[in-house]
Amino acid sequence: MDGISLEELQLAARNHGMPLEALRYPVTPVGLHYLLIHYDVPAVEPEGWRLTIRGERELELSLDDLRARPAAEHTVTMECAGNGRARLEPRPVSQPWLLEAVGTARWRGTALAPLLEEAGVPDGTVEVLFTGLDRGVEGGEEQAFQRALALEEARREEVLLAYEMNGAPLPPQHGFPLRVIVPGWYGMTSVKWLSRIELLEQGFAGYQNRQGYRLRQTEDDEGVPLNRMQPRSLLVPPGIPEFMTRERTVAAGEVLVEGRAWSGMAPIASVEISDDGGSTWAAAEFEPAGERWAWRGFTYSWEAKPGEHVLCSRARDEDGNEQPVEAPWNLGGYANNAVQRVQVIVTG
Amino acid sequence: MDGISLEELQLAARNHGMPLEALRYPVTPVGLHYLLIHYDVPAVEPEGWRLTIRGERELELSLDDLRARPAAEHTVTMECAGNGRARLEPRPVSQPWLLEAVGTARWRGTALAPLLEEAGVPDGTVEVLFTGLDRGVEGGEEQAFQRALALEEARREEVLLAYEMNGAPLPPQHGFPLRVIVPGWYGMTSVKWLSRIELLEQGFAGYQNRQGYRLRQTEDDEGVPLNRMQPRSLLVPPGIPEFMTRERTVAAGEVLVEGRAWSGMAPIASVEISDDGGSTWAAAEFEPAGERWAWRGFTYSWEAKPGEHVLCSRARDEDGNEQPVEAPWNLGGYANNAVQRVQVIVTG
Repeated sequence: MDGISLEELQLAARNHGMPLEALRYPVTPVGLHYLLIHYDVPAVEPEGWRLTIRGERELELSLDDLRARPAAEHTVTMECAGNGRARLEPRPVSQPWLLEAVGTARWRGTALAPLLEEAGVPDGTVEVLFTGLDRGVEGGEEQAFQRALALEEARREEVLLAYEMNGAPLPPQHGFPLRVIVPGWYGMTSVKWLSRIELLEQGFAGYQNRQGYRLRQTEDDEGVPLNRMQPRSLLVPPGIPEFMTRERTVAAGEVLVEGRAWSGMAPIASVEISDDGGSTWAAAEFEPAGERWAWRGFTYSWEAKPGEHVLCSRARDEDGNEQPVEAPWNLGGYANNAVQRVQVIVTG
Repeated sequence: MDGISLEELQLAARNHGMPLEALRYPVTPVGLHYLLIHYDVPAVEPEGWRLTIRGERELELSLDDLRARPAAEHTVTMECAGNGRARLEPRPVSQPWLLEAVGTARWRGTALAPLLEEAGVPDGTVEVLFTGLDRGVEGGEEQAFQRALALEEARREEVLLAYEMNGAPLPPQHGFPLRVIVPGWYGMTSVKWLSRIELLEQGFAGYQNRQGYRLRQTEDDEGVPLNRMQPRSLLVPPGIPEFMTRERTVAAGEVLVEGRAWSGMAPIASVEISDDGGSTWAAAEFEPAGERWAWRGFTYSWEAKPGEHVLCSRARDEDGNEQPVEAPWNLGGYANNAVQRVQVIVTG
C-alpha cells in the first residue's frame, strides 16, 4: 500500500469505523457505530427546527409533530459505500476505510410513506430528494448534502424518518434532530440533519447522485449508481492483539470464532470460514435470525493448531450474491466487499 | 509528511479524535469524545465483575457497592498524550493523531482516596497501581494495560473511580463498568475497565510506565515520564469545509471565532489569536470559568478580509507555560502542543 496522505489522515481522524470486537453486540453501542460526515456536524436548535415536505402541498413539521405520529422502529445494519476503499490498488483517494465502516442500530421514528401521501405525490414524480443541513464544498461545488431516491424505494414501508437511535434522541453526529433511514442501502442515502423533502419529476442532477456514489472506471464513465449493500461478513478477530500491528495471538485448542453477515439485496443464505487464507472452506453456524435489515450472527468452532493462520469468512445471500476473494477496482473505491483476512498466530 | 502506513491507518480507523466543530459543546457528546484503546474493548458482564483493592487488607467491591458510596462528579477535559504526534517530523510511528485527541465529559463515581484508606495504606507506599481488563502485546510483552500513579497524586480528592459518563453508565469503549479519572493528566493514567488496585512500596516497572509514555530522545534514553497536560487551545474552524482538503471558506466581514483552552498544570491565564500564521497576535475574550478541570471557552471577533489567512490560537496558563509555535521532537511523539494552524479562504 502506498502511504496515506495528510488529507486522507485528516478524514480518518474525524470519521471512524467500528472496532471489530464490537461485532459481539447485536446492536452497536453509540460511539462504536461507524461515522462518515462529509462536511461538519451542524449545530441544530431543535426548537426552531422544521422539516419541510414539498408535494402537491407543503407540510411544515416540528419535532413534536413528528413524534406525535405513529412510531416505528427497525434494527438496521448500515455500511458506508466506501468501506474497503483503502484495500484497493491503486487506492482511490477519499476517506481511507479498511473494513470497519459498519454498525447496527435501533432507529425509531415515523414511516416516510404516509407523510408523502399527506403532502400529495404529483403524477409523474420519479424521485424524492432529501436535503440535510450540513454544507460544504465537494467536486468544486458548494452544496448542502443532498441525495435523491427513486419514489418506489422511498415508499417502502420500512423507510423511516428517525429521531431516536438505540432508545435515545439522535446524537449530533448521527443527524440530530432527524434523519432518513433507508434499510438495505449503503449509508449515503440515509441523509442526516434532514431539513427538506421534495418530489422531483425528473432525475436529480446534484453532485452526490450524478458524480459521487457511482461505480465508474474512468472520469468520463457515467457509471452505475450505488444502492444496496453487497453481501459481507466480518469476524471478531480472536485472541489478543499486538498494539501496533493488530496481529492476533491465540492459544491452541478449540476457539469459538464469531462474526456477523449482511446483504442489502437478500437475506444471508450461508457463511463459510477458512483458516488457510481461502484455500478450504467450512460452513459456519447461524445464530437465530433477527430482523430482516439487521446483520445475522454466526459462529464457527475452530480447532486452532500451532502456527500462523489466515482466517477468512465468506457470505452468500439468497439471491446468490457472494463475497469475492478480490474485489474489482473502481474509480471511487466503492463496494469493496472482498473477504476479510485475519492473521492469527496460534501458540502451542 | 511521509505517507501513513497501513499499520498506522489500522489504528486511525479504530481510534478517533473529536471533530473540531464539536468544540462548540462545553461537554462533549458521547461518540464525539476522543478514544484511544491500546488492545481490544473487553466484554465485561457487570454481575460477575468485582474491583479488588489490595492494601493492608483486601477489599472486593461490586458495582452496587461502589454506587452505594458517596458520589462525586467532575467535568474533566482529557487529552491523549500522543495528540499532535503525526505533526512531528520525522513522525514517530504509533496512533497518528493530528490534534483532535481530546474531549470533555461529566464523570460521576466515587472518590478514590477514602477507599485507599479503608483498604489501609502501608507505610512506605510510593505508588498506586491500576490494572485494566484489556490484554494485548506491546513492546514484545504480553500484558494487561497497567499504569501506576504516585500515592500523593492518587490521594487528590478529585481522583475518581467513575461509573457514569455524561449521566449514563460508561459506554463499553470508555471503560464499562468502571475506570479511573485523574483530572489534569493525559488520558493514559485514567485506566479503563478497572479490575485491580494495588499499593506498591517501590516504583512500578511495567511497560506503560517504564517504556511507554516517557519523553525520550533515543531508545537508550531513560527519559522523563509524561504526566499533566501541557497547555493547548483549539479553534472551531470557521466557515464551511472542502470535503477532501478540509480547507475552510468563509465570507468577508465579522466572524465570531470560537475555541477552548486547557492546561493540566494551572488554570488558563490567556489565549491569543493570530490571523496571519503567528506574526501578530490579539487577545481572545474568555467565557465565564467553569470547573477547574474542564477546558475554558473563548471567542474572538475576527474582521475577515478577502484573501487567504492562517488562523492560530495560543494559550498560556497561570504558571507561565505557553504553547510553542513548533514543538520539540521526541521519540514517542508525545505532548506536541504546538499552535494549531487553520487555513481559511475569505471570499469577497
